[in-house]
Formats: sequence, C-alpha cells, structure tokens
Amino acid sequence: MAVAEISSPSYTTKSGLLQSSQLSSLSTHLHNHRCCSFRPLPRTQYAKISCSVAPNQVQTPLPVQAEDPKGKPECYGVFCLTYDLKAEEETKSWKKLINVAVSGAAGMIANHLLFKLASGEVFGPDQPIALKLLGSQRSLQALEGVAMELEDSLFPLLREVSIGIDSYEVFQDAEWALLIGAKPRGPGMERAGLLDINGQIFAEQGKALNAVASRNVKVIVVGNPCNTNALICLKNAPNIPAKNFHALTRLDENRAKCQLALKAGVFYDKVSNVTIWGNHSTTQVPDFLNARINGLPVVEVIKDRKWLEEEFTEKVQKRGGVLIEKWGRSSAASTAVSIVDAIKSLVTPTPEGDWFSSGVYTTGNPYGIAEDIVFSMPCRSKGDGDYELVKDIKFDDYLWKRIAKSEAELLAEKKCVAHLTGEGIAVCDLPGDTMLPGEM
Amino acid sequence: MAVAEISSPSYTTKSGLLQSSQLSSLSTHLHNHRCCSFRPLPRTQYAKISCSVAPNQVQTPLPVQAEDPKGKPECYGVFCLTYDLKAEEETKSWKKLINVAVSGAAGMIANHLLFKLASGEVFGPDQPIALKLLGSQRSLQALEGVAMELEDSLFPLLREVSIGIDSYEVFQDAEWALLIGAKPRGPGMERAGLLDINGQIFAEQGKALNAVASRNVKVIVVGNPCNTNALICLKNAPNIPAKNFHALTRLDENRAKCQLALKAGVFYDKVSNVTIWGNHSTTQVPDFLNARINGLPVVEVIKDRKWLEEEFTEKVQKRGGVLIEKWGRSSAASTAVSIVDAIKSLVTPTPEGDWFSSGVYTTGNPYGIAEDIVFSMPCRSKGDGDYELVKDIKFDDYLWKRIAKSEAELLAEKKCVAHLTGEGIAVCDLPGDTMLPGEM
Repeated sequence: MAVAEISSPSYTTKSGLLQSSQLSSLSTHLHNHRCCSFRPLPRTQYAKISCSVAPNQVQTPLPVQAEDPKGKPECYGVFCLTYDLKAEEETKSWKKLINVAVSGAAGMIANHLLFKLASGEVFGPDQPIALKLLGSQRSLQALEGVAMELEDSLFPLLREVSIGIDSYEVFQDAEWALLIGAKPRGPGMERAGLLDINGQIFAEQGKALNAVASRNVKVIVVGNPCNTNALICLKNAPNIPAKNFHALTRLDENRAKCQLALKAGVFYDKVSNVTIWGNHSTTQVPDFLNARINGLPVVEVIKDRKWLEEEFTEKVQKRGGVLIEKWGRSSAASTAVSIVDAIKSLVTPTPEGDWFSSGVYTTGNPYGIAEDIVFSMPCRSKGDGDYELVKDIKFDDYLWKRIAKSEAELLAEKKCVAHLTGEGIAVCDLPGDTMLPGEM
Repeated sequence: MAVAEISSPSYTTKSGLLQSSQLSSLSTHLHNHRCCSFRPLPRTQYAKISCSVAPNQVQTPLPVQAEDPKGKPECYGVFCLTYDLKAEEETKSWKKLINVAVSGAAGMIANHLLFKLASGEVFGPDQPIALKLLGSQRSLQALEGVAMELEDSLFPLLREVSIGIDSYEVFQDAEWALLIGAKPRGPGMERAGLLDINGQIFAEQGKALNAVASRNVKVIVVGNPCNTNALICLKNAPNIPAKNFHALTRLDENRAKCQLALKAGVFYDKVSNVTIWGNHSTTQVPDFLNARINGLPVVEVIKDRKWLEEEFTEKVQKRGGVLIEKWGRSSAASTAVSIVDAIKSLVTPTPEGDWFSSGVYTTGNPYGIAEDIVFSMPCRSKGDGDYELVKDIKFDDYLWKRIAKSEAELLAEKKCVAHLTGEGIAVCDLPGDTMLPGEM
C-alpha cells in the first residue's frame, strides 16, 4: 500500500470567491436590474461556521498538512484537512471532486439523503464528493451534529463537508443544488401565504446560485410548493440555463408505480412509462394512459377504468397524507430515495423505451402546455445531466382535462408570485385552496 | 424483455411454523428447564399484522398470482404478492432470498438501516431480501408507515416486508437478527433497572430466536446495554452457536478512527487496526497501542501519550453525548452505518493485516479475558459470516488495566442479570453507575 502524500500546496485558494461586499452589491444590482417589485429581503447573516480540527499537533515527520486550517474556514472537523486525491495510489483513478449543495440540511429528508450521497450510492464508487450543507441560524447546532455523524461514518468518497447559513457561501461552485429547505404551511396559513414565504427563500437562493454556483449547476427543488419555487428560483438565476431546474415529482411517480403494481398483482419493477403531469399538488396527474405493465398498456391490464380515473389518482395524491397519519410525520426516507432516483435518472442513460417524470421548464414543450411555468412531464436522459422531453405520448380527453386543471393552477400560482419573478405586481387568485401532497 | 412468470404454486407454506399453542408450551418448557429464577413475562400479544393489498382485481389473464393473500398474513402491501424469482429472466442469477429481522423497526436507527438493507448496499446487488420488522403495540402504526415508505421506494431486491409485534412470528427463519429495540434509561432509573428491563426483552427474544430462527442465525445486538443484552440473548438460545451473537461496538471503532485521523492530520481511511475492547459503556477501551496510521503504529505517529491516554479515550466515549447536545437526539444515521459496517465485515473477507471490533462471546479467547461474557475484541472474517479472534496483539500495563476495569464491569453486570441467564438469583453490585455512550 502506498503511503499517501498529502501535499500542503494542495490547499485550494478560492480565487473565484466574491467578497461579501461584492456580493451585496451584486445582489443589489440584480435586484435593481431584474426585479423591480422584489421586496428587499434582510440579507442572511454571513455564515457562522465551526471547525473542530485542532492545529496540527502531530509530532513525527509524517507527510501531513501543516498549514493552519483557518485558511479554509467553512470546513467541518476531519474534513478541514486537505487531501491531494491525485497523489494517492488508490484514488488516482477517481473522477474530479464534485460539489453538492443541500439546503434544509438539518432536516429529516436531508438526513437520509446526505448519507446516500456520501456513500457513493448516487454518483458511483469513483466519484469523490464534497457536501455543502445549508441550514438556518436555528438549525446550526443540528447541522454540526449532522457533520459529526458524517465524520463518524468514515465514507471513503466523502472528502469535504462544509456547513453554513449563507447561500452565497454554501452554493460556491456547486454542481448540484438539492433545495429541500422550506417552511411547512402553518395552521390557518393560506396557500398564497405559503407561496410568498417560501418563494422569498427560493428567490434568494436563485440569486445566490446565479452569483456563485457552477454555470451548469443542476438544481432539484424539493421544498414546497416545489414547481413554483423552482420557477422563482430559475427566474432569479438568469445566467444558469432554465433547463437545469427541476421540481421533484419523482416520489409521486414511484408511488403511482407501486399502486399500479398492487392493483395488477405484479411486482413494481414491471411497471414502466409512468408520467406525473403538472403540479406537485393535489391537481397532479398520474398518467395511466401511457403507463405500461410488463410492456403492455396499463389500460389493457387493469380494465377497471373507474378505479384508474378515481381511486388510483386519489391514492397517489393522498399517499403522503395517509403516511403522516400512520407515521406521525411526512415521508423522509422515501423522499430521499426519490431524490436519489431523480439524480440517477439524469446521470445514467434512461433505459430504452422508458422515461421518468420531472417538473421542468415548459418553454418549447411539444405538448402545447403553457410556456414559462415548471410542469412535470416525461423526460429521457443520455446520462449527461441533461434531458429531452419524450415526444410519442398519447392523450385523451380525460388526460387533457386533468392536465389543463393543473396547468391553470400553476398559471395562477405564477401570477401570485409575480413580485418574486420580476414580472410585476402579484395578483393572487388561486383556483381553490388546493393542498400539497401530504398536507392534512 | 422477458415477461415475468409469477406462478401461484410458489406460495411458501411455512410448514415449519410452530402454532401459538406450541410456542407457549415451548416457552414454558424452556423457562422451567433453564431459568428457574426467570420472572414469568407476560407473553407478548400475537402479531396484529396488516396488509394493504386488495384481493386481486386484475381483469386480464396476466400471469399473476390469484390466491387470496390471506394465506400469507404477515406480509405488507405490495410485498403480499409472491414472486417466483427463478422464473424471472433478470433475477435467475440472484442468490436465494435472505431473511433479515430487525427489532425496534419503527425507530430512527432502523429507519436508516432498513433502507440501506433494502437498497442492496449491505448484501450486494444479487441478493434479494425479505425484511421482517418487529415493533411494539404502540409503534404498530408507525411500522405500517415504514412499510409504506419501503413500498414507495421501489427497491428491486426487496421482495418481502412483514411487520409484527410477536418475536416468535417475526423471527421465523431469520438468517440475520438486528436487535435494535430497547428502552432508553428514563430519568432517575439506575443502571441495574435498565439492565433488568431491557434484559427481559432480550431474554424473550433469545428464546424466540432459539425456537424459530435459522439454526445459524447471526445476531447483532444494538439495544443497550448491548454487551449484557447479547449475553442474555445467547444464554436463552442454547441451540444457536454462542459465537453467532454480537454486541455492536463498531460505532465506537469508527469514532475512534475519526479522532485519530483528526489528531494525526490524515484522512480517516489511513487509520486501521483499531480495537474497541470491552463493554459498550464509558469503560470501553479504544486501543491506540495496536492501532495503525498509514501502516505505522499510532504511538509512533502521535507521540502525545497524554492525549492518547486521556483526551482520545474521552473523546470517543463522550462523542455520543456531544452529539445529543448538538443534534437533540442520539445518533441514528451513523449508528445505522456502523451496523452496515458490522454486517459487511462478516460477509466480506477482512482486508489483509487489518481487523474489526465486535462484542463477542469470550469463551476460548486467547487474551486471558474472563470466560462467559460478551466483550468487544479484535476479529477477522473470511467473509462467510463467521470470525476468528486476532492473535498477535500487544498489551501494556495501561491497556491491561483499562481492559480489566471493563471486564470487572461486565462481570458485575452478569451477576446483576443472573435471573435472566438461568444462573440463579441476581445480585446487583455494579462498580459505579457508569453511563452508556451518549447518556447525559
């Protein structure tokens, strides 16, 4: 076994890092330039970051780094050490370190997701990973706890963990941004209120991504209402391709597959081509018309059309709520699994003939869905992080009617957040106070 | 793609299943035969098991099972369907289905662990798995929630999920039993009280394993106090080799590696040969004498003996407590990771020259540690599920003194649970009320 060389010059000086003052002015600039109706937000406090590593007290001439870890202040614990991956025999064949930012990192969904990312399960066994955890002032202690547990897990691929509460610092050079953090709807809060509160978070995070993330960062918005949050986010990040933003509807797709399998009496791996159309809300449309079981159209296998139109759709929509009743809280583990599925679907080629669902920007869609919203549609990927919409899709009156309803809801949500997308004064006239999946 | 044949005759009739009446009499028999001082326990209520699958309503002649799922009552949801793995083109090369039982299955540690087991991360991508979840009457609803989330995750390898509250049903044919469930120490409860309450749980579960599990079941006890719980468990399962029982000290080993790495300024994958000796309590002994960094003895790399003897040991012992302060609850994700590590260490060959720690039965140990207790020691495995103790270990006075202290604690714990191991009347004279790692 070759003894690892850990060369001190490998400390990465982040020459591209914008200073706080620059960021503030950039933020102000963007604000003035794009979004005249933006409400001025209190700037999030700059990151308070802790690092448990002590100055190096090794007393033998081991080839270890000798610089003060303060040069890299956002690191955590053992991850404050810098490793020259190229110099280590075992890691020479690894890919370049990938930066993955996760918001809501102290929450339950992230708690499942982070350990999956760190284990290599998502990006593969030759992909070293840097995790950048975004939390809030309130969750900072818990965030340290998460970082400690990541340390104690000894994941070989996990080479950096940093924690912070300023998205402009945490999103620096991010190649993936998994935006989970959002406020849940409180008692008596209307959907319009939720749209506004969470929309502000995603407007701010869009600006941060625009300022500091990789120019080709892939963004998956999980925090609800995720479609409109994703729209707000991409509108505030004009320098990042709109196509790179996704709203997570993969959990709905997975649930739909499971329900179809249950009904048909087959294992769930026999169900394919399931699309979730539209909004991640109760107007979502699980598409049984194009779905297949053992390669056959679902409608030829499950001939109970009433079940498909009524019970199936309702089962998928209400699954989250049933789970909350049973489990006492929202799904976390299965949501994390579906985020992993969503990422894997973008970084591995889609199996021949199949597709996956993702809430993506509608502009240029072949289905005639309104432009300039984020709508869940069927996608295929070559595995390069990008995707194409699937063209050969059947529609019938039932499917169109349902899709139109979800489209109308998203267009109304869009008007309701106009102040956050730079499109003027918000007008909130939502078509009924629809619930999010899982809301009671 | 071959269309799967799911043949109805593949329903497994559990001819080996003991009826409740038989179990009760067997339990009574064991009680009389082995443990005259056993306190009679109220028999746990027989499993109340739910199954969300509806009678098969498929209306086309798809090759699906047609029997009423009631024939297999312990299943959950989509997992109530039976699949003939041999008949499916993709799964023909898979291994035989493995039965893994998990207690405390509605808790946080299990919530992380179950999804790792189901994903194939632990037993490999060609190992289909049946998960048997043991909960309590109180947690049964949450257990259903866990099963629902497992359904929604669409893990291809996960072929059966069953839930229940009777260990005699849930442990049926178990090849692995991961015993996580235990009561935490309540306010004002003495360690003796905790030993008794949890000891009764593990006596009962030992009897259940003895009655219904695979004759070569591997058991990992996680619920605290895990060493003595494991001893109680193996004493109540005389027909299962004592060598098959483990108490989890792998999280302590992982934490020790991380702290040594931090101190030496190296990445944690450079630290090897770390033993945790003794009890999973504050008397545990993280062994720096035999540990290595980059292949060199730790004591040659970190020459600060005072740090090694005092701070290092304390850091490892107190890590759980610090985490509770930060995170507001006990470690769950990293505990689950360490359980995965513990299983993998038994099913994959140990890397040349290295070893791992596990709390195992001391009888026949080469170190002179007292016989007939469960003590964490260095192990190596050929990857067949079995292990051998490592022979070439150095000791010095410091290490011996510390090991002797942990040994004394375990011998005292053993006397304190004599009524649960069939060795007479319990005498509780514990050497100081030591805390479990993580207790405040």
